[in-house]
Amino acid sequence: MWARYADFKQTLFELITIGYEILDGRILNTNSKWLAENITAMGGKVTRMVTVGDSIKDISSSIREALKRKVDWIITSGGLGPTYDDLTLQGVAKAINRRLVLNKTAYEMLKERYRMLAEKGVVESPELTPARLKMAMLPRGAKPLRNRVGSAPGVLLKYGKTWVACLPGVPSELYSIFDEELKPLLLKTIRKVFRIDKTLNIRKVAESSLAPKIEQIIRKYHGVYVKTHPKTIEGGISRIEIQISVMSNKEEHAIEKADYVEKIIKDIVVDMGGELEATEH
Amino acid sequence: MWARYADFKQTLFELITIGYEILDGRILNTNSKWLAENITAMGGKVTRMVTVGDSIKDISSSIREALKRKVDWIITSGGLGPTYDDLTLQGVAKAINRRLVLNKTAYEMLKERYRMLAEKGVVESPELTPARLKMAMLPRGAKPLRNRVGSAPGVLLKYGKTWVACLPGVPSELYSIFDEELKPLLLKTIRKVFRIDKTLNIRKVAESSLAPKIEQIIRKYHGVYVKTHPKTIEGGISRIEIQISVMSNKEEHAIEKADYVEKIIKDIVVDMGGELEATEH
Repeated sequence: MWARYADFKQTLFELITIGYEILDGRILNTNSKWLAENITAMGGKVTRMVTVGDSIKDISSSIREALKRKVDWIITSGGLGPTYDDLTLQGVAKAINRRLVLNKTAYEMLKERYRMLAEKGVVESPELTPARLKMAMLPRGAKPLRNRVGSAPGVLLKYGKTWVACLPGVPSELYSIFDEELKPLLLKTIRKVFRIDKTLNIRKVAESSLAPKIEQIIRKYHGVYVKTHPKTIEGGISRIEIQISVMSNKEEHAIEKADYVEKIIKDIVVDMGGELEATEH
Repeated sequence: MWARYADFKQTLFELITIGYEILDGRILNTNSKWLAENITAMGGKVTRMVTVGDSIKDISSSIREALKRKVDWIITSGGLGPTYDDLTLQGVAKAINRRLVLNKTAYEMLKERYRMLAEKGVVESPELTPARLKMAMLPRGAKPLRNRVGSAPGVLLKYGKTWVACLPGVPSELYSIFDEELKPLLLKTIRKVFRIDKTLNIRKVAESSLAPKIEQIIRKYHGVYVKTHPKTIEGGISRIEIQISVMSNKEEHAIEKADYVEKIIKDIVVDMGGELEATEH
C-alpha cells in the first residue's frame, strides 16, 4: 500500500567536529546537534557524526572515510582559526590531495576584517600577519564563505560528487555562516522529502511487552519508523515515549500514513491495558 | 630538558554512540561528554567519538574502524534494549565475527529483574519474552555488566588487545554501569599519566597576534599543549582563554613544567601590552 523507505532518496550528510576540547570532555558538542537539527528540518539525513582532535592525520582520515561512503555533504566544524593547532584546512587538503593556496576573495575578507578591528582598537595593527594570512589559505578550487561574526571565513569545495563545507567552531560564527551562506545552497540541492513526526506518551505498558508489536508494525508498513524511549518508572508505573516518523516524497501521503500508524499504535496500547497521556502537537 | 609528548604512553579510547535520535538533532550527545570527562580524569585519552544510527551495518563498520586503529578501549552507548531497533550487540558480533549466544549470567540478571518488576506491578508478567531474552544474547565470550538502574545489562568483551564495553543509552544506566562495573577494571588497566591543566584569561591581546608566540612555545617545550579560545569581543576589547596542559609520568615533573610554561606565557602577554584576569585555580 505504501512505498518502502528505500523509495525515498534523501541527501546524506556526515558531520565532522574538530577539537581536543570535545574529546577531553571539557565541552559538549552542541554544534553537531544544531547542524543536525537544521539539516533534518530541511529534509536532509545525517548518517554519521565524528569528532577528532586537532591533528592533520585524524582530520584527513575522517574526511577520507566520509568520502568513501559517498555522502552528498561533509560539514566540518572547528579548526579554522589563526592558531598553530587550527589544522582543518590542512587536513582537508591532505585528504583530497589538493594544495593550500592563497584565495583572493578570502584575502580581501580578512583585510577588511582586520582594518575594521584595528579601527576599533581590538587589534594593534590591521597587518595580515602569517597567522592571519593562514585563514586565507584554502584548498585549491575552494570558495570562502563570508563570516559576519568572526574572522575565519568558512570554506566550500566540491570533490567528486561530494560537497565539503568547513565552518568555524565558535557557535555564533557557525550559525551565521550556515544560515546566511550555506543554507541557500542547501535548499537548492537537498532532495525534497516530507516527514511527519508524532510523539505519543503512554503509561502502564512495559517497553519489553510493546516491542514485538511495534516490530510487527514496522515490518508491515514500510516507510514508517517507530522508536520507543523508556522514561523513568515512577511509583511502579512505567512511562514510554513513542516517536513515529513517516516520510514520503508527497506531503499528503506522509500526513495520511502518519495518522494511520498513530491510530494503530494507540489501539494496541489501549488493548494492552495502557493509557495515553495528553501530548502537544 | 623535558620529555617529549611521545614519551608518555596513554591508554586510548574510542567512543561510539548509537541512535538516530542523535543524528536527527533531537537530543544532545551528553553520554560521550560524560564518558570523556571521566576517562580523561583517570588519565585515559579519547581519540575519536563517532555517532551512527540504529543500523547493523553502520554499527559494525564503526567498530571495525576503531579496531583497525588499535585503540585500547572501545566504549559504545545505546542500542542494548529490548526493541527491534536496539541493534548494538548484533553490530558488535558482526564486526568481530562472533555469534550471539544466550549468556547464563545475563539470563539470571534479567530473570531477577523482571521478577522484581512484576512484583511491583510494573510489568504484567515476569516471563522472559523473546524481546526480553534478546538482552541476554551476548557475543560469544562476552561478560554481562550488572545494570542496577534498568533492565539491559552492559557487555564487556576482549577482541585481540582491545576491550569493548557496551553500555545502555539511558544516561542514569550508563553512569551506574560505568561507575560500579567498568571503573574498577579501567583503574587497573589505564596507564598512569599525570596531567596538569591551567587556565589563563587575558584581555587586550588579539588571538592572531598571540598565535605565533604560542606556536614557538609548543615547538620549544615538547610535552606541553597550549590552546587559545577567543571569547567575545566586548566594547572593542578582545578576551582570550588560554588552556595549558602538561603531562608526565611523574607528578612532580608535571607540576614543575606547568608552572614554568604558565610563567613564560604570562610574561609574553604582559610584554604585548595585554592584561591578565584573575583566574580560579
